[in-house]
Amino acid sequence: MQKSDLLFHAKWIITCEENNRVLENHALVIRDKKILDILPSTEARQKYAGSKEEHYNTHAITPGFINSHTHLAMNMFRGLSDDLELLDWLNNHIWPAEGKWLSHELVHDGSLLAMAELIRSGTTCFNDMYFFMDATAEAAEIACMRAHIGLHIIDVPTAYAKSVDENFAKALDFYQRYKKHEMIKLTMAPAHIYTVAIENLEKCNQLAHEYQLKINIHLQESPTEVAQSMKMHRKRPLQCLHEIGMVSPQLIAIHMTQINDADFAILQQTKPNIVHCPESNMKLVSGCCPVEMLMKHGINVALGTDGAASNNDLDMLGEMRTAALLGKITANDPAALSAVQALKMATLHGAKALGIDHYTGSLEAGKAADFIAIDMNQIESQPLYHPISQIVYAASRSQVTDVWVNGKQLLKNRQLTTLNEKELLEKAQMWRNRITTG
Amino acid sequence: MQKSDLLFHAKWIITCEENNRVLENHALVIRDKKILDILPSTEARQKYAGSKEEHYNTHAITPGFINSHTHLAMNMFRGLSDDLELLDWLNNHIWPAEGKWLSHELVHDGSLLAMAELIRSGTTCFNDMYFFMDATAEAAEIACMRAHIGLHIIDVPTAYAKSVDENFAKALDFYQRYKKHEMIKLTMAPAHIYTVAIENLEKCNQLAHEYQLKINIHLQESPTEVAQSMKMHRKRPLQCLHEIGMVSPQLIAIHMTQINDADFAILQQTKPNIVHCPESNMKLVSGCCPVEMLMKHGINVALGTDGAASNNDLDMLGEMRTAALLGKITANDPAALSAVQALKMATLHGAKALGIDHYTGSLEAGKAADFIAIDMNQIESQPLYHPISQIVYAASRSQVTDVWVNGKQLLKNRQLTTLNEKELLEKAQMWRNRITTG
Repeated sequence: MQKSDLLFHAKWIITCEENNRVLENHALVIRDKKILDILPSTEARQKYAGSKEEHYNTHAITPGFINSHTHLAMNMFRGLSDDLELLDWLNNHIWPAEGKWLSHELVHDGSLLAMAELIRSGTTCFNDMYFFMDATAEAAEIACMRAHIGLHIIDVPTAYAKSVDENFAKALDFYQRYKKHEMIKLTMAPAHIYTVAIENLEKCNQLAHEYQLKINIHLQESPTEVAQSMKMHRKRPLQCLHEIGMVSPQLIAIHMTQINDADFAILQQTKPNIVHCPESNMKLVSGCCPVEMLMKHGINVALGTDGAASNNDLDMLGEMRTAALLGKITANDPAALSAVQALKMATLHGAKALGIDHYTGSLEAGKAADFIAIDMNQIESQPLYHPISQIVYAASRSQVTDVWVNGKQLLKNRQLTTLNEKELLEKAQMWRNRITTG
Repeated sequence: MQKSDLLFHAKWIITCEENNRVLENHALVIRDKKILDILPSTEARQKYAGSKEEHYNTHAITPGFINSHTHLAMNMFRGLSDDLELLDWLNNHIWPAEGKWLSHELVHDGSLLAMAELIRSGTTCFNDMYFFMDATAEAAEIACMRAHIGLHIIDVPTAYAKSVDENFAKALDFYQRYKKHEMIKLTMAPAHIYTVAIENLEKCNQLAHEYQLKINIHLQESPTEVAQSMKMHRKRPLQCLHEIGMVSPQLIAIHMTQINDADFAILQQTKPNIVHCPESNMKLVSGCCPVEMLMKHGINVALGTDGAASNNDLDMLGEMRTAALLGKITANDPAALSAVQALKMATLHGAKALGIDHYTGSLEAGKAADFIAIDMNQIESQPLYHPISQIVYAASRSQVTDVWVNGKQLLKNRQLTTLNEKELLEKAQMWRNRITTG
């Protein structure tokens, strides 16, 4: 008999390893923030007798979802303007709103509101890109989430930094303070090729190499972006980045809705990670990333919601479903982007993109205790023939009952444990009143 | 002072009339199953003093959703087989399962399960097409929903009827028994042009004229259907129906993902109703109905989920959202198929398609008390700038708290009043066990 911290018995455990397994009536054994074992419940009761036991009799336990592209603070602009084209939406709505309201306070409150939404829908880890990174990092520490925060670089002056040099200075300062944090990891995050000059992209690349950071960038999100690059550089954005040596497995290319043969050749050769954001891409008519084709060629594709201003939620269950549906019509093949693939994009593939798949993204002994329980005994999920189909195609976020990150419970029977829901709703109302009357 | 039954005070009332209004702090006044008045809450308290009052202080009240295309009983096959092409899915999975399990009992239990899902997600009226119509009608009477049930005609022998003649005989018998029902309305429902011979379609058309019924048919759902018709009839399906005089405002053409210029000319001339089922069409890669273009040309487009076996839910909130997202990429215009249009497709346009817009589909004095309350004071719906944007792009079905049909409350603070949730879950499990072991 061995001592262990906690046994979680579940109707189903879905591991999301490379060779995914759906285990029935198994137990997840957690010790010291980590997964110690996964084995049949009957065996677990003997091998780990004396442990504290929890029962998810009608639930599926899966890895926590990894939202690989967010702008969390933009939750405060959710639904402010809809049904508009990307650059119209940015130039005439979002950037003016940011110009007026961007502040440490807005980012802090917006990030906390977003994290509450993430936790309530089963997301345990996010990859954020926004201004006032300190405010998001503080929020992540309060929420106890696993966070990836981009060192945000943009040439355009903002309320956060008057120049690109000030952005670099603040990024370096932020890096020094958070580089050894257990739960908050950093990436380099130049915003777009059309808002960061090539020499500054090169500087980002150097810093990323020096600090061994992944690089995040919105890339070939829309036809307009590609056309602007062709006009300015006589090259497509991916080619520009490739020529400065930025395209490699260290790159996280966000969106990539525009891929021609030359792009595809670069992708095949260099194997960057791609983050697919189907709902944002559809809403802004940015284009459709050919996910199935990329995955078939061994390119890692993760899943992100993008910011709530262009989605308008941070619901990874809904995003998986949209990814599966859009993936099929993009590939013109109803067998493309199956439910299993969508679930892996939202878990293991996200961890790979962020370079953390050695400790999270799937349920395996030795990995961190980042997992969620989804109640399948609901009218909307019955009868149940295949749990993964039901999770991707029929379940909704409200069926996520419990969420654990690094062995700590952040959602307990639908109640947040680290965040105060009532306070967050009041803060959201306050910001709504400010923004609409201001 | 006038006597009234009930005052519903709400933060927002969204009327979904032709000229939609979003009213703040208004009251909906209900008397004798009908809407008597809609007016500011302060005025309502004076004008209708002494009435019983209910308060939806953080809610939006909207018309109940109308799901314009369902196969309710197929809820029992939800998730049985996914990620397959339409005809493979039908021929090798769904039709064999139906061949084995189709019965009055399955349809009764499946319809009840589906109605529980409909009510829990704010749908008050559905338009169904399936075998064993009696079983669905009985379920609708138990659930107290507003039902449209198709007189189902198919040439193929089934467990329900051995021949098309038996289908016609059963349809006529069903018609006689339900023709004067207050809540259950009938349509003619030949299944597809490839499962019903032209002479039988003509007979359906005659009966529909004789009984003044709308005609439902799956039409130009997929490229394969069009190709088969070209091969067999040397005409596209719409043209075939047009030549027998079936295409008119009395027709409800379901799917219509394949529309060429000749089809469009017929549609403009004849003005049938179209039911768009975006999630089913995406999942089966049937095609994309050009909704924005049709609506701009004055063709009424309603919204349906299709059956849960190809969706895999009956969630009209999710369907509206997918319709808006898919509508934009289909039109290649992010301003296409706005949130307001999506909401109208799910309400007034559905009522128009079914020919019941004179008494439901919008909130107006004199119409039936078919309405729902959606709680917007949730982390996922805040801050709130525009209620319709939040409903379509961010809310989920679990935020629907209360549902009223014809003045009767079917969902009360998330609890079903006419159906027993526990019993339905047990029945679903029983069917799951039968179907998987059988």
